[in-house]
Amino acid sequence: VTVASPGLVSDLAAVVGASHVLDDPDLKAAYETDWTRRFSGAARVVVRPADTAQVAGVLRVCHAARVPIVPQGGNTGLVGGSVPRDGEVVLSLARLSELEPVDELAGELTAGAGVTLAALQAHAAERGFAFGVDLAARDSATIGGMVATNAGGIHVLRYGSMRAQVVGIEAVLADGRVVRRLPGLVKDNTGYDLPALLAGSEGTLGVVTRVRLRLVPSLPARVVAVLAVHDTAAALTVFARLRARVASLEAAEVFYAEGLELVVAHTGATRPFATAHPAYLLVECAAHADPTDDLVAALEDADVVDAAVATDRGGREQLWRLREAHTEAINAAGVPHKLDVTVPLSRLAELERRVREVVAEADARARVVLFGHLGDGNLHVNVLDVPAEDDTVDVAVLRLVADLGGSISAEHGIGTAKAAFLHLTRDDADIAVMTAIKHALDPHTLLNPGVLLASRHP
Amino acid sequence: VTVASPGLVSDLAAVVGASHVLDDPDLKAAYETDWTRRFSGAARVVVRPADTAQVAGVLRVCHAARVPIVPQGGNTGLVGGSVPRDGEVVLSLARLSELEPVDELAGELTAGAGVTLAALQAHAAERGFAFGVDLAARDSATIGGMVATNAGGIHVLRYGSMRAQVVGIEAVLADGRVVRRLPGLVKDNTGYDLPALLAGSEGTLGVVTRVRLRLVPSLPARVVAVLAVHDTAAALTVFARLRARVASLEAAEVFYAEGLELVVAHTGATRPFATAHPAYLLVECAAHADPTDDLVAALEDADVVDAAVATDRGGREQLWRLREAHTEAINAAGVPHKLDVTVPLSRLAELERRVREVVAEADARARVVLFGHLGDGNLHVNVLDVPAEDDTVDVAVLRLVADLGGSISAEHGIGTAKAAFLHLTRDDADIAVMTAIKHALDPHTLLNPGVLLASRHP
Repeated sequence: VTVASPGLVSDLAAVVGASHVLDDPDLKAAYETDWTRRFSGAARVVVRPADTAQVAGVLRVCHAARVPIVPQGGNTGLVGGSVPRDGEVVLSLARLSELEPVDELAGELTAGAGVTLAALQAHAAERGFAFGVDLAARDSATIGGMVATNAGGIHVLRYGSMRAQVVGIEAVLADGRVVRRLPGLVKDNTGYDLPALLAGSEGTLGVVTRVRLRLVPSLPARVVAVLAVHDTAAALTVFARLRARVASLEAAEVFYAEGLELVVAHTGATRPFATAHPAYLLVECAAHADPTDDLVAALEDADVVDAAVATDRGGREQLWRLREAHTEAINAAGVPHKLDVTVPLSRLAELERRVREVVAEADARARVVLFGHLGDGNLHVNVLDVPAEDDTVDVAVLRLVADLGGSISAEHGIGTAKAAFLHLTRDDADIAVMTAIKHALDPHTLLNPGVLLASRHP
Repeated sequence: VTVASPGLVSDLAAVVGASHVLDDPDLKAAYETDWTRRFSGAARVVVRPADTAQVAGVLRVCHAARVPIVPQGGNTGLVGGSVPRDGEVVLSLARLSELEPVDELAGELTAGAGVTLAALQAHAAERGFAFGVDLAARDSATIGGMVATNAGGIHVLRYGSMRAQVVGIEAVLADGRVVRRLPGLVKDNTGYDLPALLAGSEGTLGVVTRVRLRLVPSLPARVVAVLAVHDTAAALTVFARLRARVASLEAAEVFYAEGLELVVAHTGATRPFATAHPAYLLVECAAHADPTDDLVAALEDADVVDAAVATDRGGREQLWRLREAHTEAINAAGVPHKLDVTVPLSRLAELERRVREVVAEADARARVVLFGHLGDGNLHVNVLDVPAEDDTVDVAVLRLVADLGGSISAEHGIGTAKAAFLHLTRDDADIAVMTAIKHALDPHTLLNPGVLLASRHP
């Protein structure tokens, strides 16, 4: 059991109040394990500041004592980046949950790091706006964590990932200094883009406390189609055609025969087609007026075997459910190895084919279930029926992805889970640059040690 | 006259060939003054490498000799960032003009730093794509310089600025090491976003040699409208309504009565309306099918006094000319002080009013002509009839902008021209972070010294 020194606890209590410094093991426990339950560790103490000034105070105390910090938002990450490893102070941003009024003229708002995605979405919707990023963990995931990890989701092809939504940021540096760029300027060429640098830095350069976010118009008219296709190459050709012709295209997801079977077995969902097909492309279009005619016209003569189309909410949700239930259906079938990778679109069909081969070579027992965000070149590779502790399959898949010019982390980040693999796609010069930036901003390695650059960084 | 040491010249000649090391004053001259003619200085020597390997070689030679470098693209910048100040080596990227084939599946291409915007646009158009950034200097401005300065232009509200187009980058560091992220991945959460950091860094962190850029669909159906409105506040209300209702909105520009009079007098253009109005909002919509009905419907009951609408190319160009001829009409009327600023949209009407007041207070002779990118909160402030060397008016405008929470450089960058004003909108912590990053990547201050952080950086 890690115990905090009395001096540290009292110094932190002087900043945030004694009731927000948790050193009771029972109270700390909820902060020491993430929702995957794969990652956990002992926190020296958990601190729950109320605002930016208190975050700065906490960091000044920890900096003076040279005590490392793990920032934590909704704890919904998938790569072990938000739980302690070795007696760090866990800095929970949950209480920074202030949502400022929507700036309707700018189409922007400012949110505290602890605001959940769902709360942000509801707040924007009250004023006729939507938010450009959506993902399944919306009720728990917080804006600060989503910015720090540059979260992705299902609308990246239309609106970009979290970094593209950030028009301003406030963050506390390792020594407690505050950097603040919050006015919400669309254009601002006065120096390095610190918001873009902090986005995706996984808490290693600064602690995000507030963000200014762009909103997007609410689009009420929607159509969802599941298109049966021969293979990944056909899905890509259809996607490229829609991207060129249908401006309202908002999502382009892919899944395969084996995944659909798992979903049908697990959820009892109705199959969209009478017969099975090798691959399925799910597309959604959203506009002010019904986009169905545009979609149908663009699909004329396309290489599509069959199509299921829905415009009403119930029908759309049924089709989406076929894709979204993959995670739970896979989890119900076993404990999967999960890899989240992208390759250039020109290599995606090859990835889909070869990932099955390399997994089979690595472990003949393994079952592969693939699905993902086709438009982003992003496959979630799930491997069932291999031992949890054996990473042979993981290494084989990541090496394949690197060979294909891809990324070993599409949208989940590196965290502690993939730090040892960073060199697969980042060469020495690249890692040296990132390490130099890390040293420049956090010379004592106090911010989220072990995450991202751990394997090269002392 | 600055003279290069024989050793440096021969070392550089060994890298790029003797014919691409220019030390003849007549040959150097074209590289020593930019197109504004406001900024010029002596180059020790001008070097014209052919490719990334030669750029790296040049930087290794200069690094070993501790000789500073000024990277130069099309030399179309407006803030003195691309010409020598004090005997630096000018590194011209003009010969890095390779355009790789369009990747039609990804909707991306890779371009050398020396490719002009016009060449890129033509290359993309051959394959049915467009590029998300457009600006008047397209025939000279190069992609490397546009990325290094995060160029903006007239389509930012739809597609973002240059940084938003960059899906990969190759750059040479001060010591000659090469950082390369070019596969063109839409999602890639493996470490700090170096492409976003290098974009807008104005050549102070690395020399951009190649970029991977996203393309956008070509949209053939267009409508342009000039809307006469009562004032800036009305223009903003109309803009916000169109942004919420018309997904095809691509540009929203503003100009005023005095600017239109200058344009009419200078170009002989026909006035769009029988009578003069205080302010004009120019909007363009672009889609696959004619967007005119959408635009007209959204304007119903809007606070618009009169409207001129064109869908044919000639008519659209005539309307655009009213806005685009502002620069030449102003230049014909005198030598303007030009300031490129943004404020939050909620402060733009106030800026428009108060900028006239503070300029009048600073210099009663001054004439103010305003125009700009309304949707981005971006006004180009032009002040005529004040002496060229007197910066009283400039300082007054920049202070006003800072008071309104704005940016002293919307899209032109800081360069050498505004380095002394950076502290107006960036506080000590912010500048310290930027300086720490600069030191981390360029410890000997060899890359574009005097630009951006000059006033605080040794």
